[in-house]
Amino acid sequence: MQPDLLSGPQAADTLQQLHSRAPLVHCMTNDVVQAFSANVLLALGASPAMVTDAGETRQFAAIADALLINTGTLTRPQAQAMMAAIEAARQAAKPWVLDPVAVGALHFRSEFARQILALAPAAIRGNGSEILALAGLSGGGRGVDTMESASAAIPAARALARQTGAVVAVTGETDYVTDGERVLAVPGGDILMTRVVGTGCALSAVVAACCALPGNRLEHVAAACRIMSAAGSQAVTTCRGPGSFVADFLDALYQLDARTLA
Amino acid sequence: MQPDLLSGPQAADTLQQLHSRAPLVHCMTNDVVQAFSANVLLALGASPAMVTDAGETRQFAAIADALLINTGTLTRPQAQAMMAAIEAARQAAKPWVLDPVAVGALHFRSEFARQILALAPAAIRGNGSEILALAGLSGGGRGVDTMESASAAIPAARALARQTGAVVAVTGETDYVTDGERVLAVPGGDILMTRVVGTGCALSAVVAACCALPGNRLEHVAAACRIMSAAGSQAVTTCRGPGSFVADFLDALYQLDARTLA
Amino acid sequence: MQPDLLSGPQAADTLQQLHSRAPLVHCMTNDVVQAFSANVLLALGASPAMVTDAGETRQFAAIADALLINTGTLTRPQAQAMMAAIEAARQAAKPWVLDPVAVGALHFRSEFARQILALAPAAIRGNGSEILALAGLSGGGRGVDTMESASAAIPAARALARQTGAVVAVTGETDYVTDGERVLAVPGGDILMTRVVGTGCALSAVVAACCALPGNRLEHVAAACRIMSAAGSQAVTTCRGPGSFVADFLDALYQLDARTLA
Repeated sequence: MQPDLLSGPQAADTLQQLHSRAPLVHCMTNDVVQAFSANVLLALGASPAMVTDAGETRQFAAIADALLINTGTLTRPQAQAMMAAIEAARQAAKPWVLDPVAVGALHFRSEFARQILALAPAAIRGNGSEILALAGLSGGGRGVDTMESASAAIPAARALARQTGAVVAVTGETDYVTDGERVLAVPGGDILMTRVVGTGCALSAVVAACCALPGNRLEHVAAACRIMSAAGSQAVTTCRGPGSFVADFLDALYQLDARTLA
Repeated sequence: MQPDLLSGPQAADTLQQLHSRAPLVHCMTNDVVQAFSANVLLALGASPAMVTDAGETRQFAAIADALLINTGTLTRPQAQAMMAAIEAARQAAKPWVLDPVAVGALHFRSEFARQILALAPAAIRGNGSEILALAGLSGGGRGVDTMESASAAIPAARALARQTGAVVAVTGETDYVTDGERVLAVPGGDILMTRVVGTGCALSAVVAACCALPGNRLEHVAAACRIMSAAGSQAVTTCRGPGSFVADFLDALYQLDARTLA
Repeated sequence: MQPDLLSGPQAADTLQQLHSRAPLVHCMTNDVVQAFSANVLLALGASPAMVTDAGETRQFAAIADALLINTGTLTRPQAQAMMAAIEAARQAAKPWVLDPVAVGALHFRSEFARQILALAPAAIRGNGSEILALAGLSGGGRGVDTMESASAAIPAARALARQTGAVVAVTGETDYVTDGERVLAVPGGDILMTRVVGTGCALSAVVAACCALPGNRLEHVAAACRIMSAAGSQAVTTCRGPGSFVADFLDALYQLDARTLA
């Protein structure tokens, strides 16, 4: 099956909704990418909040518009707090998104990820190795890096989407987003983005923000990928390396307007 | 009562003292803003240290010149370590400062904040919702964002200052700083600062540094607000968005001299 | 004994090996410098991963090429996880590196650092106060800042190297690196680097990456110092303060080529 391309007007609609609705995203993410993820959401007009105490996560998941679960620096207390937050989000009918960092490569987080897969994630965003591992089709990557191309993981992504009901995004040089039936392709971005920590994790935070929007979830998640790759492609034209890329990327996200995307 | 404006020479005096005394600030702050808070203090010539183990916080609070308590990502072990640090700071006659992030919106941190209010904070820095909640006058904001303007919280800030003995800063488009009697107004800054994570939290770290200086605490805390808003106003004239703002803001803090402020 | 200068071709060889081998570095580092350390490693072509759960650290230390232990925000659970990781690294014959942040000044981390010194670190990187404290010759600095020049700690560094078998780097205005016999001097860098949080901690991450390379460890560790000081010296020629320094420094690391270093 040939993937479709996400249309420009669809991506523009998602961006406009992010700006007008400013979703509040409860980010339970890894220690390394907290500030960058927050700044990416803020640049897009969304609102981040990182609440970590188990009791508070339960309360806050019901206040927030969406919940992000990222396993990058998972610990046992954090896994318990995440579980409480997911349950509260489900009770409040709020979407939650999984970023299965390094799942497949490490046992504890793999077991945790497989356990929460049964709790109806709205979306899952990972690299090829992570999506293959989540779908039960491989043993995972080397640490946080993928050993597989995104396109090689499309069948696994479709199977995972059908199994869980989630929209699944497998990201790489081109990103592929599927609801189990349709597959949308999102090209763009730049290899320099792999030399900056947190671009994938921050994309997952934007995916969570987009899952809080009304409308077609498949297209919203693909639009999240498109928004990030458009800003990345813009930033590489002005930056001089991965250091200036970070500032230029956040500036580009902030300046991105619906007309350009459309 | 009409607020007074902080005078330029007063702000300049505080800045000069920061440069010459280089206070060592023990920051017990949230996971998201650690690096930015440290870089803000370093840009101003102060010295940050983030010590988190309960035993070590007790020891370090006596070594440091001031202690910052920020509830942004409070956990139960962290609350215990903070309590130990506050007690050690008090025994060593070192000032401690409270940044009550999201107090009012979330139960655990609200209870914790009300508990430590009795321990004689030197200063409190929050947004309108947080100060209203701390003063017992409202239920708090939506996550970390305020639902109230700073000016609407001036009466609460004065009441809180009289109740605790702290200098209270309620920050927003204009910042208001009070010791319960006088109110100083500090205009400036820019709306773009709300699109960058940690500007408020970093201000609280600077407030802590300023509480370590001899002299009038009300004026020093207002000067902390003025220093940050002056650098913010400068940075928005050169930046292209929230990404380049961060670098330009730190550069502006570093280059800020007493003459310009005066 | 007069220190030798590290030769340009030696530093160039280390940089080329970093680029071609892309070592995977397991960073167990402090909360403040996680993103910066990761971005420094990525800019040099290495691969960072921050794994923190005790069970996973045991597993991951065997997958990674080197392990970094940084005591900056040490807690008791983290100390246990670090101990598990060090033991796993040793069993897998992978090098581990110690950055003894604020050792000497604070009891818990000092005791922990002295305990793990017996576990054959491949390298140790600290400032003058930290190296003197580790060698048992002084009581340590004031928080994270050194009270001693690097050159004053050369005898302590040599003693520590002989005692532990590690290559010891004591860094400051000039860095000195010793295996207990030879001492290599690495000049360069800039005082502005002390106004940016994490430059020392990130150097330790690069030292860990370099310990994963085959060849002379003394020269590789000195080359790590040289690579960082060369990028720092380059960045200060273009930046306007500590904020723009961060971006310019990462860009300079990324653009650094072997010919320039040689």
